Amino acid sequence: MSKLTVQARDVEVLVLDVDGVLSNGLLIYSDNGEETKTFHPADGLGIKLLQSQGVAVAIITGRLSRIVEKRAAELGIKHVIQGREDKLQALEGLLTELKLDLSRVAYMGDDLPDLAAISQAGLGMTPADADPFVMEHADWCSRHPGGRGAVREACEFILEARGLLAGLRQGFLEGTGL
Amino acid sequence: MSKLTVQARDVEVLVLDVDGVLSNGLLIYSDNGEETKTFHPADGLGIKLLQSQGVAVAIITGRLSRIVEKRAAELGIKHVIQGREDKLQALEGLLTELKLDLSRVAYMGDDLPDLAAISQAGLGMTPADADPFVMEHADWCSRHPGGRGAVREACEFILEARGLLAGLRQGFLEGTGL
Amino acid sequence: MSKLTVQARDVEVLVLDVDGVLSNGLLIYSDNGEETKTFHPADGLGIKLLQSQGVAVAIITGRLSRIVEKRAAELGIKHVIQGREDKLQALEGLLTELKLDLSRVAYMGDDLPDLAAISQAGLGMTPADADPFVMEHADWCSRHPGGRGAVREACEFILEARGLLAGLRQGFLEGTGL
Amino acid sequence: MSKLTVQARDVEVLVLDVDGVLSNGLLIYSDNGEETKTFHPADGLGIKLLQSQGVAVAIITGRLSRIVEKRAAELGIKHVIQGREDKLQALEGLLTELKLDLSRVAYMGDDLPDLAAISQAGLGMTPADADPFVMEHADWCSRHPGGRGAVREACEFILEARGLLAGLRQGFLEGTGL
Repeated sequence: MSKLTVQARDVEVLVLDVDGVLSNGLLIYSDNGEETKTFHPADGLGIKLLQSQGVAVAIITGRLSRIVEKRAAELGIKHVIQGREDKLQALEGLLTELKLDLSRVAYMGDDLPDLAAISQAGLGMTPADADPFVMEHADWCSRHPGGRGAVREACEFILEARGLLAGLRQGFLEGTGL
Repeated sequence: MSKLTVQARDVEVLVLDVDGVLSNGLLIYSDNGEETKTFHPADGLGIKLLQSQGVAVAIITGRLSRIVEKRAAELGIKHVIQGREDKLQALEGLLTELKLDLSRVAYMGDDLPDLAAISQAGLGMTPADADPFVMEHADWCSRHPGGRGAVREACEFILEARGLLAGLRQGFLEGTGL
Repeated sequence: MSKLTVQARDVEVLVLDVDGVLSNGLLIYSDNGEETKTFHPADGLGIKLLQSQGVAVAIITGRLSRIVEKRAAELGIKHVIQGREDKLQALEGLLTELKLDLSRVAYMGDDLPDLAAISQAGLGMTPADADPFVMEHADWCSRHPGGRGAVREACEFILEARGLLAGLRQGFLEGTGL
Repeated sequence: MSKLTVQARDVEVLVLDVDGVLSNGLLIYSDNGEETKTFHPADGLGIKLLQSQGVAVAIITGRLSRIVEKRAAELGIKHVIQGREDKLQALEGLLTELKLDLSRVAYMGDDLPDLAAISQAGLGMTPADADPFVMEHADWCSRHPGGRGAVREACEFILEARGLLAGLRQGFLEGTGL
């Protein structure tokens, strides 16, 4: 078993950045002041699959948006930390609350503010279109870009390391689903 | 005549998933609570061409959206089933109503919740950007991604199998259209 | 001088389809009933350059949208025909009004409803992502997709055929612009 | 040290066009009259990094939009000049105010109205998807398209020329950030 697989197998919480990871890296502004974000249903299903197997999912983002709350609620994500540029400190606060060690965390981010968390988490992950310098410090990089399948891939990577992916897929083939 | 052509020729209803198939795979959320979906006019024309030749088109989606009703109404799609994650059961209910057998159904979906329906329909179809595991269980995969031409290709594949595509195109060349 | 250059040189009006040509091929619907279209500033500049040299620009579209009126007004396009699926007949009506022959028309469209007009116009044009069957019947195809530079390329092709492009570019280099 | 590096090292203000540079080149119009623009968080971080090192950032755009004011305010950009098609003159006015010479300006634009400014600025820059004729007259072209990383690359290019990029990245790795 590779070191990377061991790291993935031991993950107890997947922590996600929003812009460029759970959402694509676009800030969409209307001239009436409205903001819009886009999400991907395949990422949402990945998160639900992971949660169904007892792995928690959390969000830490530097910006503030009601949209993130709505999407988190849809996906049953309970830990949503917004408005924190100091992501490593925010992550450490979350881990104290969850009584978990950094070695049990998979952290997925795409840019410099995520770098310290990616570098110190047990499993540092980036989407395919992350900042190149951040990518160099990650343990794992997805083939799909952020907001378009990167999170799904990350979830499946963790499920596969635990030997759970094939069984979950078989359930859908038989029509029993989740 | 290939087995695939025979399957396509016998199709009496094309059943479509929405997110990732009829719409591109993006959930677009505004901070005022509004949701947005994108559709493709070329897909719409494909659906109208298919309907004009007596093949029905239906929609089954796991989510709920007024946008889907609006787009379905524009395209003359009468059978619209929303909010059903159990897609195979929803499909079976529709077929009872239409007095049709699964062998006469083309079902196009892109992710695990569509897998049982794709695998049991007479013609299982996926867009080019479907989940790889789902693609393995489909009979046919489009070259265009979902929400950007995949449905048009599916409609033309069925029309071609029935020997109807060339005549329809000729009508447009002569300016008589549909 | 190639036959294509001669056709382009003699063009007195460029007629554009909207969805898939002047706008990208996406219908963006909100659940409050709002519709959105996207345009490209580079296409807009191409239209202004062409008009500045005495070539008219017109729009014929099968759909109906206030957005098209707004964009046409911004670009100084006076001839805007909406809600016409019978595009060749709509084009013929426009030409009667403009006292022009079909041989003096460049028509750019992307799908089957445009096919008769493309095939009969003096210069039939399509964007890079047009329907393949329609492309086969066009005289010219852009390298850029619709709504993302296809119209700019079409305008520059006509200006180049008239020997006007280099001079226009030089004006911008010298800061005199249009 | 290459001539290009010297040009970049001496830059005291980075001046940005909006559509096609700071925003992607799409004009998004709703049928209720609303306009939307998209921005990229990675570009925003690049601007903040550059400003933190004493290089000013300014905006000159031919269009008028409240969205630009909002995005500029978020990023701490004080010099925002809108509604000016005569960009070189607008730039000269700004330089008088800032008491700077054209040789100390990096100007990034993507189309013909930017050409004179790009050609006369100390460092003329374009995104990867700029007009080809404009690109020929630029000193530097990004690998990323406008509105999706081009501005970030431009900022990092200037920081690298000043020997500041590695230190800034190291700060993020250590979790001290900006």
